[in-house]
Amino acid sequence: MSAPYFGTVRDHRCVSWRNIESFASKNTASITEDRYNRDPTSVMDLKAYLRSRQKKIDRALDRYLPRANTKPATLHKAMRYSLFAGGKRLRPILCLAATEACRGNIDGALPLACALECIHTYSLVHDDLPSMDNDDFRRGRPTCHKVFGEGIAILAGDALLTIAFEIVSTAKPAHRYNISALLHEIAVAAGSQKLIAGQVADLEAEGKDVKRDQLQFIHENKTAAILNSSVRLGAMSANADARKLSAITRFGQRLGLAFQIIDDILDVTQTSEILGKSAGKDAAAKKATYPAVIGLEESRAEARRLTRQAHNALSVFGSDAEPLHVLANYLLEREY
Amino acid sequence: MSAPYFGTVRDHRCVSWRNIESFASKNTASITEDRYNRDPTSVMDLKAYLRSRQKKIDRALDRYLPRANTKPATLHKAMRYSLFAGGKRLRPILCLAATEACRGNIDGALPLACALECIHTYSLVHDDLPSMDNDDFRRGRPTCHKVFGEGIAILAGDALLTIAFEIVSTAKPAHRYNISALLHEIAVAAGSQKLIAGQVADLEAEGKDVKRDQLQFIHENKTAAILNSSVRLGAMSANADARKLSAITRFGQRLGLAFQIIDDILDVTQTSEILGKSAGKDAAAKKATYPAVIGLEESRAEARRLTRQAHNALSVFGSDAEPLHVLANYLLEREY
Repeated sequence: MSAPYFGTVRDHRCVSWRNIESFASKNTASITEDRYNRDPTSVMDLKAYLRSRQKKIDRALDRYLPRANTKPATLHKAMRYSLFAGGKRLRPILCLAATEACRGNIDGALPLACALECIHTYSLVHDDLPSMDNDDFRRGRPTCHKVFGEGIAILAGDALLTIAFEIVSTAKPAHRYNISALLHEIAVAAGSQKLIAGQVADLEAEGKDVKRDQLQFIHENKTAAILNSSVRLGAMSANADARKLSAITRFGQRLGLAFQIIDDILDVTQTSEILGKSAGKDAAAKKATYPAVIGLEESRAEARRLTRQAHNALSVFGSDAEPLHVLANYLLEREY
Repeated sequence: MSAPYFGTVRDHRCVSWRNIESFASKNTASITEDRYNRDPTSVMDLKAYLRSRQKKIDRALDRYLPRANTKPATLHKAMRYSLFAGGKRLRPILCLAATEACRGNIDGALPLACALECIHTYSLVHDDLPSMDNDDFRRGRPTCHKVFGEGIAILAGDALLTIAFEIVSTAKPAHRYNISALLHEIAVAAGSQKLIAGQVADLEAEGKDVKRDQLQFIHENKTAAILNSSVRLGAMSANADARKLSAITRFGQRLGLAFQIIDDILDVTQTSEILGKSAGKDAAAKKATYPAVIGLEESRAEARRLTRQAHNALSVFGSDAEPLHVLANYLLEREY
């Protein structure tokens, strides 16, 4: 835990996505995006790293998505409205960082990274619907159904889910993992016993007394499963051997659960303005959250414990995992 | 057009799915399902053929779908409620018939056939939602959202779409078409410029004066695209060469459009009881339909013309295409 890459973020407990600019300029050497493209294992400038990755991912997503004026224009506008709404691109960034950790080519993992972001966005569009979480705001903007109506929002979500698999069809398989293996990985993670299971359990838990194991079921499936598959797919794309895939899976499981616990904490402690979505909604809707079930301080301790386990899982990768270490710390310390 | 396989259906213009039993026993030699498994090119017993295929497809779907009590049980019950609601299994049957026409192994095409049925069912579950076509009945039973609520119905649709791709990951590729090609074919057919484009255009046309070319756009995308991909995927699974794939594509395009025109006609001419869904709904909702745009008789003539073109496209397959010929006639003459 004394490696240099922990220092950058742990010294500054209030690093948020929005103040990353000042954080980065104060705390790390300013280096160009090119440097990261050339040598991702150097001491990291988090801001430049994230920007470079976001740019790469956004460009690829823009290429994969039909133009906004493609017939039917309403649908393609709605897809792009939600996909280009200022998302952090966390899942694709984690995917590419896992590829780096396994010394793979990040351009080769790009289709999988983009497919993951399309699936994440579809799940948000559908979860926000009136018959689900009924959210009016997302990333600081009106939700898809508030702008385009419920029918188009449902169809835009369907189309984002479907295009994710079209994008997977363009992926180049690695020696150990063919397209069937990659497709299976992503379809299972997004399926009825993972991502969708989590959302169903979340819906069904509303207003009820929820025990810790039920809560863990919701979080492990609703959030952690796709986060875990993000790093697994990155590793698979880099042709990781069984030992490395197993290590990255442990990392993904711990990080995924920590991520959702922190989301729960932020819903209690932050304002809507900072979150870009309605704060305190979970408590108001009597949602199952970690702070509600085990208390705020114990939730924070649990998130730290899981993040520590996530770091430990990366030992097999040595300094190749620097981006994953920095990302894990960033996620623990984020403000929204 | 004088081949023996036309006789069975053309002599009896009112063959419906429900009176197939009497039709078959009166008009064709009674033969066992085994005979079709052994020799699909023999003079066909339509009833036995359809039953045999439906049974095969239902069994495979039952194997692919998680048990109804798998957690979360509500979701898996809803998925099975809609998937096992007495659907005709038309898309998978066409897929397998195309495999036969190309002398392929139908068991090899079964994953693709099942994926197509899951996608078809998801599209029905979502189209029936209150914010879309707002239908209370489907196949004679209350629609998914009437039984399970809107939230679960949306998620059950999402899960059926996702599991379709999980099932595709189990398909065995043919020499000419790898998994990427099969995945691309099905994802594009179900995507924002085909299946979903059709539903969006249909929603947007409601209550408006629709021209024939707009109507054709809706039908070609909402219905014909997946029907066409059904036969294309069956042929691809059988390693069809370019000439055969091109012929089956012409067949699928014509048949797909004819199928939707007949659906429009039945909505006008049949009772809700026979259709198993609300008859006359299209007219009531001022939906874009062929009878509304070009009249009932011209619609019938157009369906016959397209079916004739579909038959003609099959010449390259000789007697191997007997099931496709019989299915095309059956679809033209059906009562619901």
